[in-house]
Amino acid sequence: MKILRTLFILSLMTTSLHAQDIDQKLKEKGIVLTPPSQPIANYVNAVRVGNLLYLSGKGPTKADGTNITGKVGKDLTIEQGYQAARLVGINHLSVLKAELGNLNKVKRIVKVLGMVNCENSFGDHPKVINGYSDLMVEIFGDKGKHARSAVGMGSLPNNIAVEVEVIVEIEP
Amino acid sequence: MKILRTLFILSLMTTSLHAQDIDQKLKEKGIVLTPPSQPIANYVNAVRVGNLLYLSGKGPTKADGTNITGKVGKDLTIEQGYQAARLVGINHLSVLKAELGNLNKVKRIVKVLGMVNCENSFGDHPKVINGYSDLMVEIFGDKGKHARSAVGMGSLPNNIAVEVEVIVEIEP
Amino acid sequence: MKILRTLFILSLMTTSLHAQDIDQKLKEKGIVLTPPSQPIANYVNAVRVGNLLYLSGKGPTKADGTNITGKVGKDLTIEQGYQAARLVGINHLSVLKAELGNLNKVKRIVKVLGMVNCENSFGDHPKVINGYSDLMVEIFGDKGKHARSAVGMGSLPNNIAVEVEVIVEIEP
Repeated sequence: MKILRTLFILSLMTTSLHAQDIDQKLKEKGIVLTPPSQPIANYVNAVRVGNLLYLSGKGPTKADGTNITGKVGKDLTIEQGYQAARLVGINHLSVLKAELGNLNKVKRIVKVLGMVNCENSFGDHPKVINGYSDLMVEIFGDKGKHARSAVGMGSLPNNIAVEVEVIVEIEP
Repeated sequence: MKILRTLFILSLMTTSLHAQDIDQKLKEKGIVLTPPSQPIANYVNAVRVGNLLYLSGKGPTKADGTNITGKVGKDLTIEQGYQAARLVGINHLSVLKAELGNLNKVKRIVKVLGMVNCENSFGDHPKVINGYSDLMVEIFGDKGKHARSAVGMGSLPNNIAVEVEVIVEIEP
Repeated sequence: MKILRTLFILSLMTTSLHAQDIDQKLKEKGIVLTPPSQPIANYVNAVRVGNLLYLSGKGPTKADGTNITGKVGKDLTIEQGYQAARLVGINHLSVLKAELGNLNKVKRIVKVLGMVNCENSFGDHPKVINGYSDLMVEIFGDKGKHARSAVGMGSLPNNIAVEVEVIVEIEP
């Protein structure tokens, strides 16, 4: 019985340490999560089915509620597009935090569809969406490595620079 | 035993009432479902995996087989785009009816990818795809609330105004 | 007992025959699978969740590492686009082979998002993506029939002609 109790306490400690890691990493990166914006139409930020969480497409909305807008490669440099994609990732972390309470419950970032607002001659979509992918791996490590498509849209809502949708596997 | 039997009958009645509700709502809205169009290529209208149903992208095909075509914001107004998106939703209901037999088996509209055919300067994609989202919530209530992306395509097959694909959770 | 044993051996033989069928079909079609290209960024070719495999978007990369590029309908004919989509399918088969070891483990091609690089006036996306769909049905028969969307992108990475992402159900 004593062994079981010790194991139980150890497992609690491990979980707690891991949770600290995610929070610690966010702190290290200077990332502060704020409550996610709520859709004003007939849809929601996320739907859970079994152990999968489907997140709505989000854009690069800043803390003040304004967006990074413009076509990457024309109005914005690739580096600015990268930062916009990273910001979309932070906004998805906010949604995950709101949905799960604890980011430690993320088991795997499964599938990313990264959409870049750009002219028809643009070809560097992967370099832009890397801003999102890099963030996920910085925060979640190997759990952050996902399947991905990075593509070019003719246009995006309110001329936002990047939109990403994602499927996340969560701990049961 | 008598209590169990009463409960059983009550549950049957509830199910039946609920089924009537969906049919009733369709009637109230003046929505008549016709058999869905069948793909003429090597793909199908829907594939089921476990309790998820993946529906193929559908367009705003009218009962006479013709489509609502044109670029929203240029050839069509936003309101016309909204109606086109609603029609895509009705066509998805037809697919669901054909696949499930009974729309009462829909447990949740999970994830919508709403694609608007528009010029590169367009920015009101959400207002267009609301035509689809509003329909789903009118018909299914809270079960109709989904995760969503609404984005702008350079072009769509045969110049259709809107295309939507959707994932639906169904009762086991 | 003897019957059980015979049934067991028969089932092994059937499995084996079926595996031969897939390899045989690849041979008949003159399709040689090479190891898939590896993403050079923070994402992976495929992520498995339960019995689903999410494959990253792939392009029409040839054995020599170069891509079929250009906008279909302008730089490439529809037939050339069809062949590009078929090549994307072959590249996905390579990913599946690398992930599963044996293509016989494919239970169903579930959902295809076929993205065509084209001008805004293009309308024949289905004819292009048929190159991908036809391949899947040639190789997997009815298991290859999927839900699908075929749409037009303003641009794709490095101007590749076609990009496809796919969800595959695998045997448990």
